[in-house]
Order: sequence, then structure tokens, then C-alpha cells
Amino acid sequence: MVRSHFREQMESSWERSGGFLCVGLDPDLERVRERMPGRERPILDFCRAIVDVTADLVCAYKPQIAFFSACRAERDLEALIAYIHASYPGVPVILDAKRGDMGSTAEQYAREAFERYDADCVTVNPYLGWESIAPYRSYGGRGVALVCRTSNPDSGWLQEFPREDPMYLRIARAAAERDEGDLMLVVGATYPNQLAAVREAAGDLPLLVPGVGAQGGDPAAVRRCAASNGRGLVVSASRSIIYAGGVADFAEAARASARRLYEKVRIPAHA
Amino acid sequence: MVRSHFREQMESSWERSGGFLCVGLDPDLERVRERMPGRERPILDFCRAIVDVTADLVCAYKPQIAFFSACRAERDLEALIAYIHASYPGVPVILDAKRGDMGSTAEQYAREAFERYDADCVTVNPYLGWESIAPYRSYGGRGVALVCRTSNPDSGWLQEFPREDPMYLRIARAAAERDEGDLMLVVGATYPNQLAAVREAAGDLPLLVPGVGAQGGDPAAVRRCAASNGRGLVVSASRSIIYAGGVADFAEAARASARRLYEKVRIPAHA
Repeated sequence: MVRSHFREQMESSWERSGGFLCVGLDPDLERVRERMPGRERPILDFCRAIVDVTADLVCAYKPQIAFFSACRAERDLEALIAYIHASYPGVPVILDAKRGDMGSTAEQYAREAFERYDADCVTVNPYLGWESIAPYRSYGGRGVALVCRTSNPDSGWLQEFPREDPMYLRIARAAAERDEGDLMLVVGATYPNQLAAVREAAGDLPLLVPGVGAQGGDPAAVRRCAASNGRGLVVSASRSIIYAGGVADFAEAARASARRLYEKVRIPAHA
Repeated sequence: MVRSHFREQMESSWERSGGFLCVGLDPDLERVRERMPGRERPILDFCRAIVDVTADLVCAYKPQIAFFSACRAERDLEALIAYIHASYPGVPVILDAKRGDMGSTAEQYAREAFERYDADCVTVNPYLGWESIAPYRSYGGRGVALVCRTSNPDSGWLQEFPREDPMYLRIARAAAERDEGDLMLVVGATYPNQLAAVREAAGDLPLLVPGVGAQGGDPAAVRRCAASNGRGLVVSASRSIIYAGGVADFAEAARASARRLYEKVRIPAHA
């Protein structure tokens, strides 16, 4: 498949879906087994079922690699991403891996994300500097989402240091300067002031915003941080959608939960 | 196997080996295939051969996970670590993964490192804060090596910011304060002044020091940064050892290269 450049792919996907919703695929093996009894590949079957009931609502999917690698399910992740590309072409897959290393090691991580898994974009930790990000960018046309300001309680320790010129804004400004249509920034919804500050620092760079689901971030506050064309946001929720229901109704409940969040993060022009 | 606490394991390993040498296992598939023609599991066989010719010289091994995951060789990594534990009990395995995420995702990464791969220690990126490191520490007795000051050219961008109170020293001080015998710091050998500054900031915390091999860091400068008991260093080289030779002599050449570096990073009391 010839794929368009990541930014163009996102713009088409926002256009098609009319919203910012991204479903995070974090298949915790214990919970998934309950919902998929007797299956040989419960993780793959569960994730495919979630994708099938949400694909018309999303602008992207975000599988989290740790949930696959903790239980030896790499083959399921490969098959899942291939399934999304084949069944819902044009829906970008952002592999959440938060890799961060240098030189030949970074090249191997880029190969993992883009060749092995065929992701459209991968999350990367920028702590090792721009040289460490270059190998991902040399896969012409794929995206790189840089971890900027995360949604967890203790995240300010380094990210907001020093107060007068915090790390996360330094990253945001540098990403905006260096963007070639391939960069995004990961910014949690749980700190709305910092999210707004990133939007200000980063111009129209797309923001990948987790934390509106189980972590309680406010979708309305996130929507106010759209780019100047009214787009530029990927709002990700995982647990609040994929585990919204019980064992028997997980798929319908996931769709209903995704639908509710979709309505809260519709793109203004379409609202 | 009942394993001792990570710090005790390291102390025993320094005592046994008499040196700081750690061999990094970065099995680039193309190079490995040349050296292991016709093998069904070239990566596993190559790494085992390297281990067999260096085990008496090392205080630890450091497999880099990207080299396995880029080419679907997770099973080889599992088998390699099991092989080291079974054949050379007491030699710690530091899984170089530089993971960094939060909450339930960090729990999955910890499970990957310590349950799936049975590593003794894992490298972790501290950019998400202490809360993101807690899940690794709750595996009583395993080690966590925090990325502090890396050896690559562009690493100062965030790590040395701000000049007057740089990030990497903030991490070093905090790690020393919070250590419970489980923490290390990753500090590249290519910036000897910063390495010395970390030693000063972090007291006797063990330092994992890559960059003395292909990257050209000076082993003598590194040795001067031992802890007050004359130990406290894990000096890692990968490419300069494992690819020291050609196709036919890779094992002997690896041993010879490891031996040369071993002599340069012997523990003073044993020298």
C-alpha cells in the first residue's frame, strides 16, 4: 500500500471521522480472557472486536505495546495493525512505545515500529535529544509523537523544571521549529493549563492527548486547544472505552462509550 | 532460583570478576547471520557463543532489547537470559530497554522485564517522574538503572538544561536520596566531566557506563569514578567486543577484545 505522508493521513482522517477521538488499545490479558473465553488468541480477537465497533468514530488507533509484550503477544500486535490497515485503510495507527535510545539502537527501534509493526506513527521520549529521534524521521512519511507533558501525578518533577522555562515547553518549541509535517506532541489532558501552554508554544503542531477517560481530563478543555484550522488534536481514551462493559456486552458498551466521547470531541466545523 | 537483592548480586559479581566489564549484547541480524551461517536461531547462538567466551571476565551482561524486537527474536532474548542464569549463575543481566511510561502501562513493562525476561535490572527513562518508576521497584530485589546522562552527541540538549542546575544532576541527586539498594544511573563515558559530576552528586550509587568501546570513551577516566569502596561501576561495551573479529574468528576476537578492556577496567584492589 502506498501511504500518504503522516500529516496528510491525519488531515484526511479528521475529515472522514469528523472528530478527534482515538481509541487506545491496551489489552490487559486477564480482563481480555474473561471477555474472550476459550479463544486461542484472546488479545487479537478482543482488539479486533473493539476496532470493528469503533472504526467509524475514530481518527486514529493507539495500541500500547507493553500490553502485548508483557504476555508474549507480539504476533497479535502485528496481526492487529495489519487488520486495521486492511479493513479500515486510511485510519492511522499510532504505536505507543515511548522508545528513546541513540544511534544503531534507535535505528532498531525505528525498524521495529515501522517495518515490523508497520505503524504510521510511534511515540518517542525526547530525553536523549534530536539525534536520537532522527532514525524515526528517516522513514520518510511516518510520524513521530514526542513525549512532552504527561498526564500522570508525578510528571511535573522533570517536565516542569525549571519553573521559568520548563522542559516540556522547550520540547514543544523545538518540535514546532523542526517539524516537517511528521511530528506530534504527547500532552496529557489532566493538566489543562499546561496543554494550553503547549498549544501556544507549538503553533499548529498536532497534539496527541491521552487522559480524558479513566484519568478524568476534561474533553471540553482539550477541544479548546485545537489548531487554527479547527483540527490538530488526537484525543485518546483506552480503559474507559475498551472495558466500559462487562463480559457479555463489552463490544456494545465500548461503542456506546466511544460514541459519548466522540460527541464531546467532535471537530467544531462538523458540530 | 532464589536470587539475592540486586545490589548484593552486583557486589558478589564485582568480587568474583575483579573488574567492571559488562558486555553489551546488541546482535545486529545482518552481521550475526554472516557469523552464524545456516543456523536456525543465529541471534541466540551468536549471543551464547559471546557469553561462553566472556563469562569469566564480566560483572554483568547487558542485552539491548531493540536488536531482538526489530527482527521478531523475543524468544531468543528469553532463551539467552535463561541460558546466562543457568550457565553462569550470579552474573546479573541488565536488560537495556529504556522504558518509560506510567500507571498500568509501566506495570506491564515491569512485567515484561522481570517476569517474561527474568532480567535482574532494567534501564528506565525517568522523564515521567518517580511515580513511573515505582512499578519496577515493587518487584522486590530487582534493579532499576535510570537514564541520566547519555553518551550521544546531542544528549546535552535536555540533559544539561538548565546550565546552572542541569536535569541530569537533578536525577542523580534524587536517585541517591531515594535509593534502596536497587537503583543505578546510566552515564555515558564520552562526557568524563559530567560522569565525575554524577559521581559527586550520587554518592556511592552504582553507575552503568556505556561508551568506552566504539564510542571512544576513556576507560581510565571512568575508573576514576568508582564508588568509595573501589567498586560501583558497570562499564559496558558492545560492538567493539562482539564484532571485534571477522566471520571465522568472532569468538576468539571477542574474548581478546573483552580481555583488553577488562584489564583497563579492573577493580583497583585486584589490580
